[in-house]
Amino acid sequence: MLDVEMLTVGKELLIGRTVNTNAAWVGGRLARAGSMLSRVTTVDDDLDEISTSLREAIARRPDFIIVVGGLGPTPDDMTLKGLARGLGVPLKPNPTALRLVKEHYAERGLAGVEMTKARRKMAILPAGSDPVRNEAGTAPGVRLRAGRTVIFSLPGVPAEMRSIFRRTVEPELLAKLGSLHRKYVRLKLEGVLESALAPAIAKELREHPSAYIKSHPRGTREGVSRIELDVAVVGKVRDAVESEGEAIAADMAAWVRAAGGTVISSPSGARGRGA
Amino acid sequence: MLDVEMLTVGKELLIGRTVNTNAAWVGGRLARAGSMLSRVTTVDDDLDEISTSLREAIARRPDFIIVVGGLGPTPDDMTLKGLARGLGVPLKPNPTALRLVKEHYAERGLAGVEMTKARRKMAILPAGSDPVRNEAGTAPGVRLRAGRTVIFSLPGVPAEMRSIFRRTVEPELLAKLGSLHRKYVRLKLEGVLESALAPAIAKELREHPSAYIKSHPRGTREGVSRIELDVAVVGKVRDAVESEGEAIAADMAAWVRAAGGTVISSPSGARGRGA
Repeated sequence: MLDVEMLTVGKELLIGRTVNTNAAWVGGRLARAGSMLSRVTTVDDDLDEISTSLREAIARRPDFIIVVGGLGPTPDDMTLKGLARGLGVPLKPNPTALRLVKEHYAERGLAGVEMTKARRKMAILPAGSDPVRNEAGTAPGVRLRAGRTVIFSLPGVPAEMRSIFRRTVEPELLAKLGSLHRKYVRLKLEGVLESALAPAIAKELREHPSAYIKSHPRGTREGVSRIELDVAVVGKVRDAVESEGEAIAADMAAWVRAAGGTVISSPSGARGRGA
Repeated sequence: MLDVEMLTVGKELLIGRTVNTNAAWVGGRLARAGSMLSRVTTVDDDLDEISTSLREAIARRPDFIIVVGGLGPTPDDMTLKGLARGLGVPLKPNPTALRLVKEHYAERGLAGVEMTKARRKMAILPAGSDPVRNEAGTAPGVRLRAGRTVIFSLPGVPAEMRSIFRRTVEPELLAKLGSLHRKYVRLKLEGVLESALAPAIAKELREHPSAYIKSHPRGTREGVSRIELDVAVVGKVRDAVESEGEAIAADMAAWVRAAGGTVISSPSGARGRGA
């Protein structure tokens, strides 16, 4: 497992204007690769908040910190300034980043657009940064190091964040992670209370301490309790991962049936997602 | 303004299984009341993670910490244990909470249901807690104090979280906040680049330093850039708040038109949301 933190920056996330789908998307990509996010922190577009939360994250010594948001041209886009302050390095015009910004305008048929202060701002990076090409927008991403931790700073616009993540961040994460396999089964249960299921999950976790077994209550339909039960196993040996995941799902399904409940989707019908 | 932090607990938020709509919902309620969340932290269902992130939040001395998730009966629901550890107090069976749990089962026609260990767990609270009635589910909410900070711990199921928030948390927040008015205008702009808008926003913010002015790029339609521009002003005097918000929106709309862009929804047509 990698230790990966996310730092999402933007007032729109704190005032309920935008739901943090970027965190869920990155979390899902990591989970599919057999890892997970260890923490997500959301702060305001504010120099103190950004620099302080970055320093706190670095002090926890994760493998990666993925910073999202606040790379644009407007005055409230201050993530790069916040990162520079947090790392104690100056901001410097980066010629490669400036070329990437100009190329982006040229591709949009705006080759002659004046490079105003606001536009140049997107190419002024913390010293020691490597700019990362943004194929879906103007502001380049940034790659930095702080001790053992690699920091990526990505735009908050989801299409741009995803594009840079897929093209540049994910390959580096996967290379560091090595190859892991993952078996994932979801059981849909009816007619059993979550509080009755709890001791059965506890018992199964004692027998399979590294597995992930979690119930999600999904309300009631015509007075009958509905629960989704997720089972996930991650490991290096594909066959062992597959069989452990199936065994746990079969145990849980047998317990539910014995308790008088119904298993709507059976473990044999569920599909595992490979790494 | 109140200083309110949120601590959202749950592996499902870190593996992309669930989008953190609870944070957006609470952020929106606070914003409408003229305040905002200062930070959202998401951690795993893990005793160390919960207790550490709680202690970090308390050290920032906010007015409120709203903890969401992990109050259910299953073994991975360990928020109350994590809060107790973070506060350095023991867990204790709470008779009022146990009565609330029993009443909930009785209301569902399960008056005789056995009070198993898993069910009793929902009524074992950190010492010093006040249980809070959950009208939409089984696990009671919890209210606690740590120095100047009031801590609410709420279930993660959105309907239950919202029900307890509206009924118990929000009235206490509003009482502490006092009465503030808020003017909110959203302008839809076309045909102007965000990088061109940036210096106009900066100038406006120099004239109205306490206002909130933020552009959100919304892509292009038929090659024309689209931007949403949010303007918000908060204050104690209703007329002053209204007129400052309208003046800023009018300034920005005039600038966009002078720059050759279009304002789709005019400031006079936008509605302010009262506090």
